[in-house]
Amino acid sequence: MSRLGCLLSVSLLVLGSTARAETVHQVLTDASQNIRVSHWEHHGDGWSIHKHELRGGQQEGVDVIRVNNGAIEFTVIPTRGMSILEVKSGDLRLGWDSPVKEVVHPKFIHLDSRGGLGWLAGFNEWMVRCGLEYAGHPGEDRFINNTGDEATMDLTLHGKIGNIPASEVHVVVDEKIRIRGRVDERMFYGTQLELWTEISTTPGSNSFTISDKITNRAASEQEFEIIYHANHGPPLLEKGSMFVGPIERVMPMNDHAAKSVDKYATYAAPTPGFVEEVYCLYPYANDRGITIVMLQNAAGDKGVSFSYSVEQLPYLTLWKNTLSKQNGYVTGIEPGTNFPFNRRVEREAGRLKKLGGGETREFAIEFELLSDADAVKKTANQIKRIQSDRTTKVDREAPKID
Amino acid sequence: MSRLGCLLSVSLLVLGSTARAETVHQVLTDASQNIRVSHWEHHGDGWSIHKHELRGGQQEGVDVIRVNNGAIEFTVIPTRGMSILEVKSGDLRLGWDSPVKEVVHPKFIHLDSRGGLGWLAGFNEWMVRCGLEYAGHPGEDRFINNTGDEATMDLTLHGKIGNIPASEVHVVVDEKIRIRGRVDERMFYGTQLELWTEISTTPGSNSFTISDKITNRAASEQEFEIIYHANHGPPLLEKGSMFVGPIERVMPMNDHAAKSVDKYATYAAPTPGFVEEVYCLYPYANDRGITIVMLQNAAGDKGVSFSYSVEQLPYLTLWKNTLSKQNGYVTGIEPGTNFPFNRRVEREAGRLKKLGGGETREFAIEFELLSDADAVKKTANQIKRIQSDRTTKVDREAPKID
Amino acid sequence: MSRLGCLLSVSLLVLGSTARAETVHQVLTDASQNIRVSHWEHHGDGWSIHKHELRGGQQEGVDVIRVNNGAIEFTVIPTRGMSILEVKSGDLRLGWDSPVKEVVHPKFIHLDSRGGLGWLAGFNEWMVRCGLEYAGHPGEDRFINNTGDEATMDLTLHGKIGNIPASEVHVVVDEKIRIRGRVDERMFYGTQLELWTEISTTPGSNSFTISDKITNRAASEQEFEIIYHANHGPPLLEKGSMFVGPIERVMPMNDHAAKSVDKYATYAAPTPGFVEEVYCLYPYANDRGITIVMLQNAAGDKGVSFSYSVEQLPYLTLWKNTLSKQNGYVTGIEPGTNFPFNRRVEREAGRLKKLGGGETREFAIEFELLSDADAVKKTANQIKRIQSDRTTKVDREAPKID
Repeated sequence: MSRLGCLLSVSLLVLGSTARAETVHQVLTDASQNIRVSHWEHHGDGWSIHKHELRGGQQEGVDVIRVNNGAIEFTVIPTRGMSILEVKSGDLRLGWDSPVKEVVHPKFIHLDSRGGLGWLAGFNEWMVRCGLEYAGHPGEDRFINNTGDEATMDLTLHGKIGNIPASEVHVVVDEKIRIRGRVDERMFYGTQLELWTEISTTPGSNSFTISDKITNRAASEQEFEIIYHANHGPPLLEKGSMFVGPIERVMPMNDHAAKSVDKYATYAAPTPGFVEEVYCLYPYANDRGITIVMLQNAAGDKGVSFSYSVEQLPYLTLWKNTLSKQNGYVTGIEPGTNFPFNRRVEREAGRLKKLGGGETREFAIEFELLSDADAVKKTANQIKRIQSDRTTKVDREAPKID
Repeated sequence: MSRLGCLLSVSLLVLGSTARAETVHQVLTDASQNIRVSHWEHHGDGWSIHKHELRGGQQEGVDVIRVNNGAIEFTVIPTRGMSILEVKSGDLRLGWDSPVKEVVHPKFIHLDSRGGLGWLAGFNEWMVRCGLEYAGHPGEDRFINNTGDEATMDLTLHGKIGNIPASEVHVVVDEKIRIRGRVDERMFYGTQLELWTEISTTPGSNSFTISDKITNRAASEQEFEIIYHANHGPPLLEKGSMFVGPIERVMPMNDHAAKSVDKYATYAAPTPGFVEEVYCLYPYANDRGITIVMLQNAAGDKGVSFSYSVEQLPYLTLWKNTLSKQNGYVTGIEPGTNFPFNRRVEREAGRLKKLGGGETREFAIEFELLSDADAVKKTANQIKRIQSDRTTKVDREAPKID
Repeated sequence: MSRLGCLLSVSLLVLGSTARAETVHQVLTDASQNIRVSHWEHHGDGWSIHKHELRGGQQEGVDVIRVNNGAIEFTVIPTRGMSILEVKSGDLRLGWDSPVKEVVHPKFIHLDSRGGLGWLAGFNEWMVRCGLEYAGHPGEDRFINNTGDEATMDLTLHGKIGNIPASEVHVVVDEKIRIRGRVDERMFYGTQLELWTEISTTPGSNSFTISDKITNRAASEQEFEIIYHANHGPPLLEKGSMFVGPIERVMPMNDHAAKSVDKYATYAAPTPGFVEEVYCLYPYANDRGITIVMLQNAAGDKGVSFSYSVEQLPYLTLWKNTLSKQNGYVTGIEPGTNFPFNRRVEREAGRLKKLGGGETREFAIEFELLSDADAVKKTANQIKRIQSDRTTKVDREAPKID
């Protein structure tokens, strides 16, 4: 830890203070102060936080923060837009085995390459955000340029935010462990979108929360998109695993997915040559506006649940990619402000959101690791109560896209 | 400072020597010698030079050199092609507040992205050079390839030189403080253009000079362009600020700018939704071939002047971008070997220059910070004397571009 | 050397052991173990190995390993895909003087730029591999995408492998000095091609061997290409230098090369304005399947020979680029699994190879530095014996390419 880091690490041993007092506040990165701490660790009572820097190959210089709350351990990647590499609790793991084996530094990523698919050269996280200017499929969009004329731009797959290093990273501990980071998606004649994220967990708990704020720092209105691309392989994904959610409507993303729409919620074993199937889902919420969705294993004794506001994140994408294990056996459960069609399609469909100059929007998802049959069943019952007797509309055909 | 750095830091305390003796000669970078000094500083009599490395976010690993001559302070960025981030003297500042907040490392810049506009993701300097192979607008140009055939190439906005790290950086002090750097724009089957720049100032003075040499290290002839893109926000830019220069001809760059050509020399307050206006100017020179142009604030008690040879830099671009402060309230005053049209346009207009194999061309601009009404008035009078009774031709229409 | 590096440096002083015992086994890089050693050196009996990191300009952070076996010295670049920068023995040198003067870090290379010619911005090695997904000319290819549909992709010149940092680097010494490295060309929905290379030499010998294994780590079949792009300038290249090989067929790559096909094997002096000539050669082999080719200087007292299996590397490309010294006076002798036409052309011509899921293919080339007339003559005689009385077919026209 640097000398500067030491000075900033404040351990307040305040007798009789309220639970909210910060016992740790460590700045790991602050570009405006010219701070980046290479190595830092902190050990609490049964929990720990460990920040280090990766070395070798394409991961040279990547910062990672490993949080162990005593029950679960997760790894945040400040250098890759505050993505979460994986979450572990005993033999339960959120994450997957991508063909991409290293945590690739953005300096090696060329989003425009391969017809806008360059993002895939670094794709191996459990959770990576898509966005913020655009979050979906590559290809041409039309926009108004700085001279007021209509122009076209080739978008790149899933946007830039997952390949921008955080400009500010703090570790705060009060009653919770909180990893905070700011990622700037800024460009002259472009966006001034700022992401502040907090990944928080209570020591000893089997859950954690991602709380994000997106602010448009420009004076002018700005379109934006965010999709939380959360990806799961074994042990949660296996033959017979199920997606469970209170769903109002299922819309297959293309004709290929339409053919298998009846079994959209169940998973196959690893299948060489499998072609991805994507389903666009509209979840129901409870009377507080909260939906809960779950991925459970075949035996129904392991799972993960997502709880979040459908007002914040109305659209849920289910990506089924049950390919061979070597090529990437994975399913994405992806709450978003929109679906991952090209931004042009989202705009035309009325799903694209805007932020006024200076405006902020908030998003939060709570994740719970379900480690036995009781926990899975309890979550399934919560989901049933949300669905209640409401029906699910299943589209037999994909939407027509120009 | 590294041990190597120490050895190279020569302090010659030579009694009775001439004023030209070097009292400091420090190599900060020399790729051919495998040298890059991370931190170095030197304190003279009322002046100082401080070299350090930025940390955090997209500025990780960027070298900056801060020179304080006792009256003015400026910051050079070797990692970004020897650009100058800003210049300060009391409450006078040359620079602007870009939406891009960090000094972005070139490893994060993709010039080809966004249809060739990737340069804008790092644009926040007071002075950045455009060039050297091409310096203007993106889009298709035609050239002769290595097999002798005509080929097309998509140019990128403002070229590469501003995003190439310097390969050699020296600090020399004699009667002046001199920051020297070499930036290589080299490619197999491409250019072998070498930029040597020196930014120099006399301790205690309110002026400094950029002196550049561009050499074509290839055996064959090579087209080249350079535009000194010097950008100003408040306090010099405000409602009522003025551009003052001895001008032979004003040519609006497009139809939009043509509408406002009558008020091309005065500036509006920050204006949300303002669309940039660009004017191509042909300055008059005095009998020594020198022109002087000035940007002054509304009260006429603050300004900056540029003095340079119109034989070296015949074309001056005035970029008015009086947008909101958040989106970038800025004006560029840009002496160049050409205008910033696509290179194809410049070639057809006869403005494009060439360097023979091994040939060198020199460029120099002296900048003076004008901190009171007398200094502004004195400069205005110099400009008037150059203009004398010569007329200014104002084009009502933009040139027709295919 | 890091503490970790120390622990891993095992010096086995085993009395009476066989010649095969490893006396050195040093891990320099292992991304999976988070290891990258910045500096390391080892001195044997008359030989040495020296690993360091380059600094300054565009070479900042590049790892190089210099091996001196007592007779020859070569420099391996782990950061650039285990390329070999140059090989020296007395006044004999394998290598060339490219306009690109630094060993450019891949973080500064944009393969897609300039219409797919970005590779040329880092091209200055004696030996750089082209490949592995594609190895030839840029431009559109068609392929089947992950949804099973036909798609098009713009390939980039000579592929990615030469601009990917090695993920694992070992130095092993037993009876030979062995530099081993693993380079991963991996992408989700893309290739999972793994290159393991070993560059080995016996202390005191005037030869060395590149032994490569390429493995397809995907479950599914994958096309691949590899071309060993070995480039030579003076002293081996000069007016009157000759390429010597047992050749079954010579095919000019385009109409321009066809005009000079009769003198394809001899070289001109540096010639400003020379346009590259490329010849596709089909070498004969001896009864063990081995061919030998040689580049010799005008006097016939200096040369280099390549010995390798034509079953592994059936196609040999001869690139003649006898331009001015400043612009790049160089010839490439390039054994490959294919010729450097666009992959589309190679596929249609039946030259494109595939690797099944999990399959490995091996390649080896032995290089001998020939430092006197006897050595050159001896090699010429070996080549003559392979050619024997077999004829050489010389195509007068280039193949027709769509």
